[in-house]
Amino acid sequence: MRPSPALVVLSLAASSLVASPVLSSLGAQSTPTERAAAAQVLTEIDALQARIAPAPLARRMAERADADRDRVLARVESYWTGGMQGLSDWIGRHPEVGFKEVLAVDTLTKVLRAAGFRVDTGVAGLHTAFVARWDSPAGTNGPTLGLIGEYDALRGTQGDFHGDQHNAQSPVAIAAALALKDYMTEKRVPGRIAIYGTPGEEVDPPAKTIMWRAGVFKGADILVRSHSTTRTTRARAGFGVCCLNINSVKYVFKGRPSHQMSSWNGRNALEAAVMFYTAVDRLRPSFRPEASIQGIIPEGGAAPNVVPDRARVEYYIRYPDEIYLAHIDSMMANAARGAALAMGVEVEIEHVGEYRDGISLGSLEELQFAYARKLGAPKLVDEAERPSGYEESGWVSREIPGVGVRVASSEHANHTYEMTADNFTAMGHTAFLMDAKVEAAVLFDFLTNASFRATVQTEQKTMAALFDRYVAGLREAYAPELKP
Amino acid sequence: MRPSPALVVLSLAASSLVASPVLSSLGAQSTPTERAAAAQVLTEIDALQARIAPAPLARRMAERADADRDRVLARVESYWTGGMQGLSDWIGRHPEVGFKEVLAVDTLTKVLRAAGFRVDTGVAGLHTAFVARWDSPAGTNGPTLGLIGEYDALRGTQGDFHGDQHNAQSPVAIAAALALKDYMTEKRVPGRIAIYGTPGEEVDPPAKTIMWRAGVFKGADILVRSHSTTRTTRARAGFGVCCLNINSVKYVFKGRPSHQMSSWNGRNALEAAVMFYTAVDRLRPSFRPEASIQGIIPEGGAAPNVVPDRARVEYYIRYPDEIYLAHIDSMMANAARGAALAMGVEVEIEHVGEYRDGISLGSLEELQFAYARKLGAPKLVDEAERPSGYEESGWVSREIPGVGVRVASSEHANHTYEMTADNFTAMGHTAFLMDAKVEAAVLFDFLTNASFRATVQTEQKTMAALFDRYVAGLREAYAPELKP
Amino acid sequence: MRPSPALVVLSLAASSLVASPVLSSLGAQSTPTERAAAAQVLTEIDALQARIAPAPLARRMAERADADRDRVLARVESYWTGGMQGLSDWIGRHPEVGFKEVLAVDTLTKVLRAAGFRVDTGVAGLHTAFVARWDSPAGTNGPTLGLIGEYDALRGTQGDFHGDQHNAQSPVAIAAALALKDYMTEKRVPGRIAIYGTPGEEVDPPAKTIMWRAGVFKGADILVRSHSTTRTTRARAGFGVCCLNINSVKYVFKGRPSHQMSSWNGRNALEAAVMFYTAVDRLRPSFRPEASIQGIIPEGGAAPNVVPDRARVEYYIRYPDEIYLAHIDSMMANAARGAALAMGVEVEIEHVGEYRDGISLGSLEELQFAYARKLGAPKLVDEAERPSGYEESGWVSREIPGVGVRVASSEHANHTYEMTADNFTAMGHTAFLMDAKVEAAVLFDFLTNASFRATVQTEQKTMAALFDRYVAGLREAYAPELKP
Amino acid sequence: MRPSPALVVLSLAASSLVASPVLSSLGAQSTPTERAAAAQVLTEIDALQARIAPAPLARRMAERADADRDRVLARVESYWTGGMQGLSDWIGRHPEVGFKEVLAVDTLTKVLRAAGFRVDTGVAGLHTAFVARWDSPAGTNGPTLGLIGEYDALRGTQGDFHGDQHNAQSPVAIAAALALKDYMTEKRVPGRIAIYGTPGEEVDPPAKTIMWRAGVFKGADILVRSHSTTRTTRARAGFGVCCLNINSVKYVFKGRPSHQMSSWNGRNALEAAVMFYTAVDRLRPSFRPEASIQGIIPEGGAAPNVVPDRARVEYYIRYPDEIYLAHIDSMMANAARGAALAMGVEVEIEHVGEYRDGISLGSLEELQFAYARKLGAPKLVDEAERPSGYEESGWVSREIPGVGVRVASSEHANHTYEMTADNFTAMGHTAFLMDAKVEAAVLFDFLTNASFRATVQTEQKTMAALFDRYVAGLREAYAPELKP
Repeated sequence: MRPSPALVVLSLAASSLVASPVLSSLGAQSTPTERAAAAQVLTEIDALQARIAPAPLARRMAERADADRDRVLARVESYWTGGMQGLSDWIGRHPEVGFKEVLAVDTLTKVLRAAGFRVDTGVAGLHTAFVARWDSPAGTNGPTLGLIGEYDALRGTQGDFHGDQHNAQSPVAIAAALALKDYMTEKRVPGRIAIYGTPGEEVDPPAKTIMWRAGVFKGADILVRSHSTTRTTRARAGFGVCCLNINSVKYVFKGRPSHQMSSWNGRNALEAAVMFYTAVDRLRPSFRPEASIQGIIPEGGAAPNVVPDRARVEYYIRYPDEIYLAHIDSMMANAARGAALAMGVEVEIEHVGEYRDGISLGSLEELQFAYARKLGAPKLVDEAERPSGYEESGWVSREIPGVGVRVASSEHANHTYEMTADNFTAMGHTAFLMDAKVEAAVLFDFLTNASFRATVQTEQKTMAALFDRYVAGLREAYAPELKP
Repeated sequence: MRPSPALVVLSLAASSLVASPVLSSLGAQSTPTERAAAAQVLTEIDALQARIAPAPLARRMAERADADRDRVLARVESYWTGGMQGLSDWIGRHPEVGFKEVLAVDTLTKVLRAAGFRVDTGVAGLHTAFVARWDSPAGTNGPTLGLIGEYDALRGTQGDFHGDQHNAQSPVAIAAALALKDYMTEKRVPGRIAIYGTPGEEVDPPAKTIMWRAGVFKGADILVRSHSTTRTTRARAGFGVCCLNINSVKYVFKGRPSHQMSSWNGRNALEAAVMFYTAVDRLRPSFRPEASIQGIIPEGGAAPNVVPDRARVEYYIRYPDEIYLAHIDSMMANAARGAALAMGVEVEIEHVGEYRDGISLGSLEELQFAYARKLGAPKLVDEAERPSGYEESGWVSREIPGVGVRVASSEHANHTYEMTADNFTAMGHTAFLMDAKVEAAVLFDFLTNASFRATVQTEQKTMAALFDRYVAGLREAYAPELKP
Repeated sequence: MRPSPALVVLSLAASSLVASPVLSSLGAQSTPTERAAAAQVLTEIDALQARIAPAPLARRMAERADADRDRVLARVESYWTGGMQGLSDWIGRHPEVGFKEVLAVDTLTKVLRAAGFRVDTGVAGLHTAFVARWDSPAGTNGPTLGLIGEYDALRGTQGDFHGDQHNAQSPVAIAAALALKDYMTEKRVPGRIAIYGTPGEEVDPPAKTIMWRAGVFKGADILVRSHSTTRTTRARAGFGVCCLNINSVKYVFKGRPSHQMSSWNGRNALEAAVMFYTAVDRLRPSFRPEASIQGIIPEGGAAPNVVPDRARVEYYIRYPDEIYLAHIDSMMANAARGAALAMGVEVEIEHVGEYRDGISLGSLEELQFAYARKLGAPKLVDEAERPSGYEESGWVSREIPGVGVRVASSEHANHTYEMTADNFTAMGHTAFLMDAKVEAAVLFDFLTNASFRATVQTEQKTMAALFDRYVAGLREAYAPELKP
Repeated sequence: MRPSPALVVLSLAASSLVASPVLSSLGAQSTPTERAAAAQVLTEIDALQARIAPAPLARRMAERADADRDRVLARVESYWTGGMQGLSDWIGRHPEVGFKEVLAVDTLTKVLRAAGFRVDTGVAGLHTAFVARWDSPAGTNGPTLGLIGEYDALRGTQGDFHGDQHNAQSPVAIAAALALKDYMTEKRVPGRIAIYGTPGEEVDPPAKTIMWRAGVFKGADILVRSHSTTRTTRARAGFGVCCLNINSVKYVFKGRPSHQMSSWNGRNALEAAVMFYTAVDRLRPSFRPEASIQGIIPEGGAAPNVVPDRARVEYYIRYPDEIYLAHIDSMMANAARGAALAMGVEVEIEHVGEYRDGISLGSLEELQFAYARKLGAPKLVDEAERPSGYEESGWVSREIPGVGVRVASSEHANHTYEMTADNFTAMGHTAFLMDAKVEAAVLFDFLTNASFRATVQTEQKTMAALFDRYVAGLREAYAPELKP
């Protein structure tokens, strides 16, 4: 989970509005422009949700008697206690940071191959990404059930650590997958299972964006992922993201070196970098106040007696919506080019990562929450939270229906050593098992209940079309302001 | 005279070299590149001066008996004491700053018209510039003798004042001109006299550059000008300028206003100006250390609650030679364009003034000095000074032979209230009369001595050709460093 | 009226909240911190307003039959048509900008002296400020009725102009005052009348702050002022200001001059100014996003070939509340001191103006609105607007009860040439007369209705105490964030 | 050897002056202030050198017949070919960068211990520094002969390499030392030998400054060191340094971190670093143009979505003399403090290294050159070069007489891979052997010739006193300019 230590003033202001029942889908649109652009779309989301009525539907589904499903859940438990919990602990004790998760991937792929999955590693050009696939012996004329597993640790001042509990994600997914596999085999249910090993969630570049662009997720009919949290929650249906839309951008300046005693023969790349960095501050009042732009200079010259011929600036550019974000990005690119022109150097601009609004589906969100409640998940939050997609990049959730499962697994905040410790306590172990059961239950219903599957698919298609209309509306709303 | 309060370290270092007799023409080339580029040219200047031997020639000419010349000088004295000294005092007591010298120009042109000159005012589009011409009744088949008169005062904290004694220049020139006119009339000497009233010497834009570009000085065969000074001096033959070659440049940034409460609708011209001003500092180590670049922000926004849509930066860019100066100018222009690009505003760059190396002729410099010595001028400086042209813009002296007459007229530095006071004391009055006599004597010799006239013309032509070679040599010497 | 061309995003967000009836007094608190700090206070304001019930009270008072009052209003009309309208036109045609309103003050004080007022001019050290006082022949054992008159014009690109219709304010006040004076004389009503001539509303420094600090308004029991507007409105009871709390600050940097050829002997004040200006941009992300900080460099060096020894930066610093505003102000002062230290120069920081939240009273706001409605004022706005005090500085309204009268007087926005034109049309003339009648009616009721007077005084006292609690609450709320 | 790729314009200008025989000691003073401060001192140096007449003295000494000396030199050769050349090659093939020279130090100290030296390692707190001492069996009532050995390699793009041939220095010193030791033992000559292993010559902090401050060199009566070069040269007697006096300084800024979404809770150390870096550019025209100031930002934030709480700027500050250098250093420290104050962060300033003018002695310089010539050293340069001390820090040579031996050892420039290759060719091997012989010969003469020893000691003492006077003169000369 991307850190979101403080929800901004602006989103707080916006969220106060939700008391009004008419605007129940709101919350992801935090500026007047966005709210204006979204107005009609939000009305239609409300109408859609009213038609689906996902909460009562979910409650009925979770509460129904279903021996097959209950057997699947029992099987999840035996896989968990029989091995997966130990695997979660082992990964938790061998933390590896993003894109270096070689031990974790070796172990997980061995387990999956042993269980009969076909495993491709190094997918999308990422060394520690993998996909494990299994086709039902009853044929593939059925849905493809996708499960996402992350495994990267955080870099900390006391060493690397699993402060986001990613160690548990893949064992959770495997326990659910194996139980479903057993069921599909035994009951001759056609379909497929795919487990996506996605590296480097905590760092750039965003692996899921790269994998999505490479078509890795194509073919999945649904995706589930679990994540550590301090409260058991669900999202409202809608579009949004935890912490604004983000461009992560590198600006590399290249000049000409020279010894300081003949500095006039050089062209100083660091001066250009510093000029650009300062120019971004100069531009701040030229951006709407909801913008959040933060940067560093991770490369600022090598030897103090030589004119630096290379320097690098990196920025995280955030804005509540992607249209104005692109405007900021473009003005900053001009600032970088202007600094290069001024200092007689070159600049290369690389977009390392792009995080965007994702889509939350009422049908899946309510279903996972209903199962979590039924299983006795602790610290349930009554009110639905702002929409935000089930994976951090936003891109995947715009295309494939899915849900993030989140049973409270620690008393302590994400990214803390205390949450790390809960990986190995009853609180963590119990929550992870519930995660696995909820994943299995949601996938079971999607697999076996054609009507529910149609509901999910319709909701996804409708939401994606509304999202496109929202973005078109934003573009139009900003047009007078952003014309050159 | 442009202020030169401190000769730079570099020119001091260079001037120490002149002890070596081989390098007697040096002194104006203050960087290794310039000295290398000038090496062969300097040798040829030395050879030329050796051929002319201007010092002994001048001594012989000044010391010769010549009744006509002596009558002219006596006539100069009677014009001076009979009216011109009073006119000098009057202008001294009615100081008018550059391009506002309406009283001075009214008075001077009245005097000249009364004396039979044809006067054109507003020449070259400058309201307070004029040319007064007189053709000899003996015909115009003779040299045109030119005299330059300035009349602008300085702006001071205690009011405007004639701290550079420009009040005396035109009366001095008129006294000399009238005496020569009388002689040419009486002796039936063909030729012409032209007095150039040149405004605004102390301020930009440089009037003489404008007048030169407009062709105002065309036709003059020689030009003389006097100027206040604390020592009676002469320049060495060569190329140079008192205080480096100068570009005076304005950079006007134009953005879009907006109230501060919606600053994102504006484009801030002041931020661009400040960014550019800062960029010039960032570029300093990218320029050779002999560069002197100083600027101001005379226009930096009107109301603090409105995004400034206009701002202006002005720079004085100085370098010992004009080739590297153009390089600096070009990099600074890119800095201005880069700042505009970065801030989303426009920039207009205007070259307000250009001051360049001028040419000093040994023949004329030594002659004026010999007459000054003969007339008993105080505070003679034995050693010849660095070459610098006889007018501040440099352009005119590259084309027309001429000389600046400088008899010590004050104990106090230029641009002081004390020098102003000496306008009205015996020290000033005596020196101005000597200036007028020296101007008259030099012009008399040029008019009547065909052999000397040929010497001057040959020297000018040769020096101009050598100067072109010097500039071509500089261009070649800098080429590897300045290639993009 | 201070310009408020755009209400910010943030206040829009906040104002959306007012749909909720519980929070009817809100609207002036636009950040979560402020809302938290104000929560209890707002509840008490609501309770206070519920007790007073100002709207029905006002309606009853306005609708009642009262022959004395109606005679006063008739008298207002005869004063207006008999002379004051002409005076308004005359001032409108002789626009004078802030602190230069000598013709207006001459004329107004003559009129007031002729009417029997004692006039003090040059009060509080301001050349064009005055106070005109009149004591009832029935004694001064009654309330002092205060009326504010402004008269400064705007500076425009086509010359100065009365685009804010300040020309009418004093004639309006005089018409009302003279009618009340006649009534008090005839009916032997004790009390006083004071007319405050307040200059320079459109420019800094804020005259009313200066006059308030000098004690000029002491003794007034109530104050009324009229102002041009495009809609007839009233404010909600509460604290607030149209466009954030403001500090207007000058930062003067003083260095040491030197010619550019020996720049190392100078200390560059402009570099320090530019460094400070840039530092403010660097600090922007260190301030909460509701801050609005805009600046200019109105003094940035005199001559481009001299190291500037003096430069000045001016800022308008705005924040929704005065506690965090003081924090920003203090960090900016450190930035100025840091820049001075870095460049080896001195800095002087001068607070030119301080605009603050004022107090709006329900009793007076509703009463003026009820009279405006009764008199047939055009373009009535049903809903009460955000609180903002009756004069732009905020300080006076914290101490003395009062109200701004605002009958729609133009179809065109403030600060436009079109609104200026309406000074002389029926729309303007009619509105100004209504302003005068409303001022007179409100003052009449305050003078003659002891119970209403007590209500107003209690409301003011209570609101002032609540405001103090609000500020104390803010201070406490910010404490953890602002501790060093 | 510190790199000096380009002698500045200014020193070129100065060096042109040396044609004048009167000023033969000049050359190290490159600014007018320095030359003025040095004037009397230089005259006294000239007088001192005239008294000593070191060149003819050296020639006589080198050419004299001396069987003992010649036997020592033969012994040097057999130590060199018998083992030291191989050791030089071995170190050359095992390059270790500064302060990591563990293999070299292990090997060298083993050799020295085996030869009977007492070895202290880790001296002055430096892990790879050592001193090896040997006392004559004839007693210690004689001079202590010091030899310096460096052994650090350069960091290159193709790996570490001995591009400065430091691999040879210690073997050269050991060959000389062992031959002298044999002589002293056989001939019963009292005295001592000390070999100083000095690490990290190519990098900061300067090891010799640290060792000198720790008193490591105390007791040495003379110090010799060899160094690779492309020409066989000697220095003029005087004070100076190859590439200006240097302060190497680190500025560490410390703020408060915060996530970008609540950046106002942070205090940005990178902004302060960038502000300081920019301020140094702003200050450039406030420093004399001979200053050379170059910097980097090697630490500029860790994560782009977090307000950086730490940033570091490093500068190499150079000026021809140490007094003005201190002035620049002090203004830059204020700039750092000002930036910290402005941004609300802390700054720590650490002086990592200080390089200063050293002292060259005519007696020792001429003697080593005379021996090099006698031994047939290649590429002799006739004219003496500018004074610069025999070790790079300057501090040691101010206190202890010494000389750098420099026989041309490569056709290729220092710090090149080509010079590295010459470590292993006949050119390198022959030159290193000559270095060893010259070291031995100089030390032999110092040891055995009491009159020469007295000459050296007197010259050192006199020069040190003159240096103090020079510095005092500088301080006085700058006083008016540098007073606050």
